[in-house]
Amino acid sequence: MRPRCSVYIAVSLDGFIAREDGSIDWLSQVEMPGEDYGYRAFMDSVDAVVLGRHTYDQVLAFPAWPFDGKRCVVLTRRPLPQPRHGETSFEGPPEALLETLAGVRRIYVDGGVVIRQFLAAGLVDDLTLSVVPVLLGKGRPLFGAIPVDRRLRLLASSTFGSGLVQLRYGAAG
Amino acid sequence: MRPRCSVYIAVSLDGFIAREDGSIDWLSQVEMPGEDYGYRAFMDSVDAVVLGRHTYDQVLAFPAWPFDGKRCVVLTRRPLPQPRHGETSFEGPPEALLETLAGVRRIYVDGGVVIRQFLAAGLVDDLTLSVVPVLLGKGRPLFGAIPVDRRLRLLASSTFGSGLVQLRYGAAG
Repeated sequence: MRPRCSVYIAVSLDGFIAREDGSIDWLSQVEMPGEDYGYRAFMDSVDAVVLGRHTYDQVLAFPAWPFDGKRCVVLTRRPLPQPRHGETSFEGPPEALLETLAGVRRIYVDGGVVIRQFLAAGLVDDLTLSVVPVLLGKGRPLFGAIPVDRRLRLLASSTFGSGLVQLRYGAAG
Repeated sequence: MRPRCSVYIAVSLDGFIAREDGSIDWLSQVEMPGEDYGYRAFMDSVDAVVLGRHTYDQVLAFPAWPFDGKRCVVLTRRPLPQPRHGETSFEGPPEALLETLAGVRRIYVDGGVVIRQFLAAGLVDDLTLSVVPVLLGKGRPLFGAIPVDRRLRLLASSTFGSGLVQLRYGAAG
């Protein structure tokens, strides 16, 4: 049985996960003391993280490695210069990656390119979108082309005082 | 005081209001007997409709004219062949159009191009999105470029048994 693949991401109402320069400053409008929008609980539920190269490079610049104790794979064509946290790299389609992750129960799939690859392959089992009440007009889109329609099943919807709406979907049928 | 400008539209989770060929067949997945998702109440609250040319041509093919008793303006550069329902045409920016609509209280702004024009001009006072649980991958997008970020205020969020989530936003601050 393959691992469950989960997406958990913040998005502007017009579908962007970052500005064109990668900036996510617009997320600050929904920052509230003591409110993590379920991030910690979500992270506690996954035992592996699959990242795109761009996201990985960003995460390396964080003050601390956020994926301690989790298996971490970077989808990339370029070797990782000096992995310090046990992260490994992989080059190939998502299906092939999943075959290397025997024993993993649930994967956090992160980064625009990687999320779009998994969605296009029909491999996303649940998708949690934190919709931020702002229109950016341009930026890096969350969604991309997919070969066929993908019907989803609404699992939950929550609203927060900040105006953020969190929508959780599973695969339909 | 200018009329209140309102958008009320269904959109796929990935932000499309129609397929590339204009088809909205994917809306059928949320059709439920006796559930109009607030459309009638919304329509009862507007006294004018502003449409793009493409939407107007579609509406003309409906069995009945759906905007009876409402002022109707088509934003278009081409003359209307034979207006039968009192509709008029207008060519120019949204601000100039609004100046011609003195006495109107609330406008239903419809059609992708027109909605994007009004959003870009900062003229949308409330935006009701019925988010259909499907990814289409491509099609006619609801949102487009805007000159600056537009922060929104979440006014309401409702979920339906069909999996549709209706989000209502107003202009922030």
